[in-house]
Order: sequence, then structure tokens, then C-alpha cells
Amino acid sequence: MTMLKSTSFDDLEIGSQGTFSKTLTERDIVLFGDTSGDINPLHFDEEYASSTMFKGRVAHGMWSAGLISTCIGTVMPGPGSIYLGQELVFKLPVRIGDTLTVSLTVKEKNDRRKFVVIDCQVRNQHGKLVVCGDAKVMPPEVSAEVEAPRLPDIQIEHNPGDAWKH
Amino acid sequence: MTMLKSTSFDDLEIGSQGTFSKTLTERDIVLFGDTSGDINPLHFDEEYASSTMFKGRVAHGMWSAGLISTCIGTVMPGPGSIYLGQELVFKLPVRIGDTLTVSLTVKEKNDRRKFVVIDCQVRNQHGKLVVCGDAKVMPPEVSAEVEAPRLPDIQIEHNPGDAWKH
Repeated sequence: MTMLKSTSFDDLEIGSQGTFSKTLTERDIVLFGDTSGDINPLHFDEEYASSTMFKGRVAHGMWSAGLISTCIGTVMPGPGSIYLGQELVFKLPVRIGDTLTVSLTVKEKNDRRKFVVIDCQVRNQHGKLVVCGDAKVMPPEVSAEVEAPRLPDIQIEHNPGDAWKH
Repeated sequence: MTMLKSTSFDDLEIGSQGTFSKTLTERDIVLFGDTSGDINPLHFDEEYASSTMFKGRVAHGMWSAGLISTCIGTVMPGPGSIYLGQELVFKLPVRIGDTLTVSLTVKEKNDRRKFVVIDCQVRNQHGKLVVCGDAKVMPPEVSAEVEAPRLPDIQIEHNPGDAWKH
């Protein structure tokens, strides 16, 4: 059983940090395309993508941004947080095999309205900034631990003729 | 064969619009949780989620935000766009069965740097604003049509004991 910890507004300090890493796979791109409906061929069709300035398939920008949300919702402040807003600047493309690391740092605490502003940086395995921007989050009222859900298994059935397999 | 149209910087005008709709399913939440790694029980565990201010499971905020990206990448400006940035304000939770509609409107054209600023609004089936914020996008150099990729089939294998099925 995996437990997720959360940190309350009172227990967070300016400078409190959280981190989360994930390596982009083919599977991640397919699942993101399905759940979002974003079938832009830049993400699936190598032949098309090679003809663009990206010179090959890249992840959806919002996939990288989603890792920020993952870090906020499961690491810091963790479950019980209320996500109020997010600024995103997309700096670099992400390709299959790239490992992204989210680094969050609390930069501001609003005592009256009980929210924090978090500096968010997502870097690739070369240390290059991929996505950045501030998040505005209302942390939970009390620090706690909660059991992580176990997601169902997912099978992808490849169709050899599909454009995304080029 | 489905074709996706794109609109170049020159062919976009202040006031140009694009729209995209999607209804949130159980499947969408599971796929988003898997691809992002965001297993916050708020999205999967009905018992836990009922104990929060949301009074039940809700979608990942970034799932709703992802629909904005889908509309930008597949509708307006469409394939060939370069996503430079996005502001997001999360206004309301989204539940399974809710139908979200993204409405994009070009509000600014930067002729020197060839990007547009797009007003983005995501509303639910009751017309209530769920997510909003400006996007900064570099449209393609020429308007075109490109074949939409067909994604592979995805099967979800439910495990009766999983917390997410509560």
C-alpha cells in the first residue's frame, strides 16, 4: 500500500520543496491523445512531424504541464489541495525517452486567503528548462496521509496500419 | 479519413474562433491518471473524495485544461501551431458525465513576432465557466490540411478491489 502525504498551509514555509520525475513513453503519448482528444499528428505521425520545425514526434505540451499538477496533487502540498491557477511557458519540446523532473518551491504565502504561490520548473535529463510558471494552490487545512489508489491495468492494441506508427 | 485544417497567421483575424467539446468519462480519468502519474485519490476514490469539499470524485484540473490545447492543436490555429504559453484559472470542478466546450477567440496579433493571443474559455453543459485564461500561440506559416492519425485501441482491465472503483 502506497501512502501519499499532504502538507497543510500552516506547515508549508517559503522555500518548501517538492519533486516528481517521469520518463515519456509511447504509451504516455497515446493515452494523453485519447483522454484529451488531441490527435494533432505532431504527436503521432513521425513522417508529418519530421517535416515540421520539431524534426520528429514530440509530446503534447500539456502532458509536460500535467506533471506539475501531479507533483502538486500527490507530493506538495499533496491530496486535499485546491488548484486555483497555473501559468505555463513552454520552452522546449519533449521526446520519447526524455525524463522530466518537476521542481516546486513555495515562493509566497497569503495568510488571509490561505493560498500559496509555487514556482514550478520542469527540466529534462540535460537540465534544460522545458516548462515553467507559477501555480496558485490552496493547501489542505491539516497535514495528513491518505492511501494512494491503484489504477486498473491498461492495454494498448496496436494497429499496424495506423499513421501514428510511421 | 479525417482531415485537420490549420489556419496561418496571415489568415487569422482578431475575432477568429474555434470550438471543441468532450464529455468526461470514467475512462478519461483513468487514462489521464496513468499518463500523468497523478493518482491523487480525489480523482479515483469516491469514499475519499466524498469527504472533501468537492463531495465526490472530480476530473484532474489539467484534463480540462488539456481540452484547450486540443482545440488549439486540432481546430484553431490547428496542426503546425507552436504553443508558447498558457494562463489557467480553475473555476469549477468537473464530474463524470459533464460535457465541456472550449471556445477560443483570437484577441491579439503580434505582426513582428508572428504570434497570436487567444482568449480561452471552457464551459460545462450548464454554461458555467470551468477554466479560462489566455494562450500564446505561433500559428503555422501557411494554411493547410493534414490527415488525422488514428489512435490504437485501448482496453482498461478493471480490478474489482481497486480503491478507484469505490
